[in-house]
Amino acid sequence: MASVRIREAKEGDCGDILRLIRELAEYEKLSDQVKISEEALRADGFGENPLYHCLVAEILPAPGELEEPCVVGYGLYYFIYSTWKGRSIYLEDIYVMPEYRGQGIGSKIIKTVAKVALDQGCSQFRLAVLDWNKTAMDLYKALGAQDLTEAEGWHSFCFKGEAMRELAGR
Amino acid sequence: MASVRIREAKEGDCGDILRLIRELAEYEKLSDQVKISEEALRADGFGENPLYHCLVAEILPAPGELEEPCVVGYGLYYFIYSTWKGRSIYLEDIYVMPEYRGQGIGSKIIKTVAKVALDQGCSQFRLAVLDWNKTAMDLYKALGAQDLTEAEGWHSFCFKGEAMRELAGR
Repeated sequence: MASVRIREAKEGDCGDILRLIRELAEYEKLSDQVKISEEALRADGFGENPLYHCLVAEILPAPGELEEPCVVGYGLYYFIYSTWKGRSIYLEDIYVMPEYRGQGIGSKIIKTVAKVALDQGCSQFRLAVLDWNKTAMDLYKALGAQDLTEAEGWHSFCFKGEAMRELAGR
Repeated sequence: MASVRIREAKEGDCGDILRLIRELAEYEKLSDQVKISEEALRADGFGENPLYHCLVAEILPAPGELEEPCVVGYGLYYFIYSTWKGRSIYLEDIYVMPEYRGQGIGSKIIKTVAKVALDQGCSQFRLAVLDWNKTAMDLYKALGAQDLTEAEGWHSFCFKGEAMRELAGR
């Protein structure tokens, strides 16, 4: 039987990661916002000072099968800083292809991120989720996360390109 | 007349920064959550691989006055990564002491962060704000920010210490 492995992404996974980033953005109904390229993902994640880290979930063929391992999910994270608690981790994206859901792959990715967080001395693990994505919200709550927007009233704000340039007076 | 200067924080500012972190948390009615120490702020922000960067706003005494410059506000930020847009900046905290508000010091800090963001090749500038803090929300909107929680439905989730350890199975 095929099995699932969660491992650190390698530079050669960037094509698969970009495919999944696009699928996730489509699922989030925000795919027009994806401007990243495979080249940028390679340069940004696999140089001397990587801007992000990534886990991939791959299906390993059963012994004797001829298929190649196949990347079916990813979790992309980086380190942030809380002025209350110090070093923390942020899971920017988590995604599992629809046909591989319901097998606990998402939970495995999240648990691996929690292990990395502890190994790196983090005291918090943050992420963001869309309010209509009840499946994800319920999963995170079941795993012990707190909805800080609901509990404390936090709203996410963003200055995008043009607004940022105006702000900087350029 | 006294004037305001926005400058990069130095290690020696950590005492002032911690004082303002505590004031901000009190203002946010969440001061029980502050666990950081001045030593941690020094080590985390001013070592070889700083986990955060910080701007401080200081009041400079008029020429001939005997007072020392006085730190009355700060903006603490770090770099994050968007899988849609690449390198981005996150303003974790921004605070100006109540008696120095209404002089545009907060806007000056935000504008300086936007300049840093552009200089560092960032394409987005994110921050979070509490929903009852209408003054801050109105300011960010007036400066061109979008409320992504309102517009797209993003909620912030967090696994805190104990939940994270359980998640990691430790």
